[in-house]
Amino acid sequence: MAMGFQERDVISVLQKIFATADPRLLVGIGDDAALVTTQGQSLITSDMAVEDVHFKLDWSSPFDIGRKITAANVADILSMGGICNYLTASVALTGHENLQWIENLARGMKAEADKAGALIVGGDIARGPKVIISMTAVGSSQSPIVRSGAHVGDGIFLSSLTGWSAAGLALLTQEISINSAEAEKALSEFSAPTLDYDVDFSRASAMADVSDSVLIQAEQIAAASGVQLAIDQSLIALAPEFEELSHLSEALRIDIFQWILAGGEDHALLATGRELPGIRIGSVVAGTGVTGVEMKKAPVSWSHFTQSEN
Amino acid sequence: MAMGFQERDVISVLQKIFATADPRLLVGIGDDAALVTTQGQSLITSDMAVEDVHFKLDWSSPFDIGRKITAANVADILSMGGICNYLTASVALTGHENLQWIENLARGMKAEADKAGALIVGGDIARGPKVIISMTAVGSSQSPIVRSGAHVGDGIFLSSLTGWSAAGLALLTQEISINSAEAEKALSEFSAPTLDYDVDFSRASAMADVSDSVLIQAEQIAAASGVQLAIDQSLIALAPEFEELSHLSEALRIDIFQWILAGGEDHALLATGRELPGIRIGSVVAGTGVTGVEMKKAPVSWSHFTQSEN
Repeated sequence: MAMGFQERDVISVLQKIFATADPRLLVGIGDDAALVTTQGQSLITSDMAVEDVHFKLDWSSPFDIGRKITAANVADILSMGGICNYLTASVALTGHENLQWIENLARGMKAEADKAGALIVGGDIARGPKVIISMTAVGSSQSPIVRSGAHVGDGIFLSSLTGWSAAGLALLTQEISINSAEAEKALSEFSAPTLDYDVDFSRASAMADVSDSVLIQAEQIAAASGVQLAIDQSLIALAPEFEELSHLSEALRIDIFQWILAGGEDHALLATGRELPGIRIGSVVAGTGVTGVEMKKAPVSWSHFTQSEN
Repeated sequence: MAMGFQERDVISVLQKIFATADPRLLVGIGDDAALVTTQGQSLITSDMAVEDVHFKLDWSSPFDIGRKITAANVADILSMGGICNYLTASVALTGHENLQWIENLARGMKAEADKAGALIVGGDIARGPKVIISMTAVGSSQSPIVRSGAHVGDGIFLSSLTGWSAAGLALLTQEISINSAEAEKALSEFSAPTLDYDVDFSRASAMADVSDSVLIQAEQIAAASGVQLAIDQSLIALAPEFEELSHLSEALRIDIFQWILAGGEDHALLATGRELPGIRIGSVVAGTGVTGVEMKKAPVSWSHFTQSEN
């Protein structure tokens, strides 16, 4: 199929959307590489999203797809206690997209980048069998927070209640239509998560973003720090929004803790430390692994909600 | 199809291959983001390669595929007069690869990164319908060289003779088997180009890497600099290796300048300036555009050698 536009048309659209007079950007899109100002230490992370594995064109608008993959990259910088400064976006397109679709994808990226205070400074466009988006985030931090710093006596905190994205996925896969504010929030969080930019975890002893699920990331913090993360589900039941989420889990007859602890894709922050803001969900104690969880762990493999066809 | 290994097995293999005690890397693979040392200015660039569009599994080993996409990213840093310090690699895998294949892909990336003096500090793994590799390079430069600096009176230089990759592609697509050192070099350069790390273009007035072809990049330098690039094909005919390449073009009855000037994928550097090393191919004069080229320009669209199926 011939496309009605050329690569240069796409680049021209992207250049307009990502245009900036920000003084951090010394040489922008159009040369072989962007030239940006950095400090003595930089954070670098990359995340890839594949059509029909991480998103479905039927379920999400291009704007939300752009927001979501950008949020995933930004969250990895936030979870190191950092600020995201720069992003690159490489996108494989099938040739079936029109320019408006591509423009909306870019606008979604730009919207989340703006929230994060980050500039989109480069990328690549390729032809592919599916839409595939790969982004890289470059950030900075005065005092980076890694996974290995949790101490016995710390509390365990979430920046916001997780599980909404998994609830949205459940609504979509089971094709259940519920007309409520909770269902709307779940679908919205699944399409593009809200990052907790305003929750100050800068004094955390260890931190991770819960893209793979609270449980998996708690296990990683426990292993990296040589401690045990004792989760207390009765604390989680006191969290703001727990009741709202439970309306959905009851309607769908799903263990709400399956969504909250094993759901994934929320991009909330999981932190340990003393007197942190957010939702307290347990305590760091001596030992190994994660305890206090009373549900079956969901299998997490390559794909988040479906196997891509061959 | 179930894969015989999990994502964590792949990550474990990659962590071993990319392991480093280099002091520039403060926090490596395994946390949410890598923490690296940077200077006041950084170069950032991204490149994506798609199976059956940029490479074919039948034509290239995983090692060469890894080398090639890494070289493409590094070349974009070199062409800004920079040094590549860090790379991330995000890879979509179909599930039909075995661990050995993935390991060889990573070893190819590592081999080119080592040549460049760069560390692979992170990335992502996803399930996809084809193998798709997206890399980002972060580099530094004391005095970045952009495309807009060419002056009337400058010479035009290539770091090495281009066209070898296009010659290799022609041998493969036409399924012609020639038993010669030239054919071997062409096939090798197509599979993974040799970057000209040793050609010192640090005093260039403008520079670009010729991944899209000498002609396209010359046009971009001319437009960005507000000058005309007058190419002299008789100078190119004096270049080392021109005769060797002409053995192949004569055998395949192809205009050799089509390969050299419109071939693409060579990742040699195209520079303007005074008394530069490399191969002089013309002069910067007053005017616009590129002159002196006597061949039909090849159509360059989304794909480099074939359209991906739908």
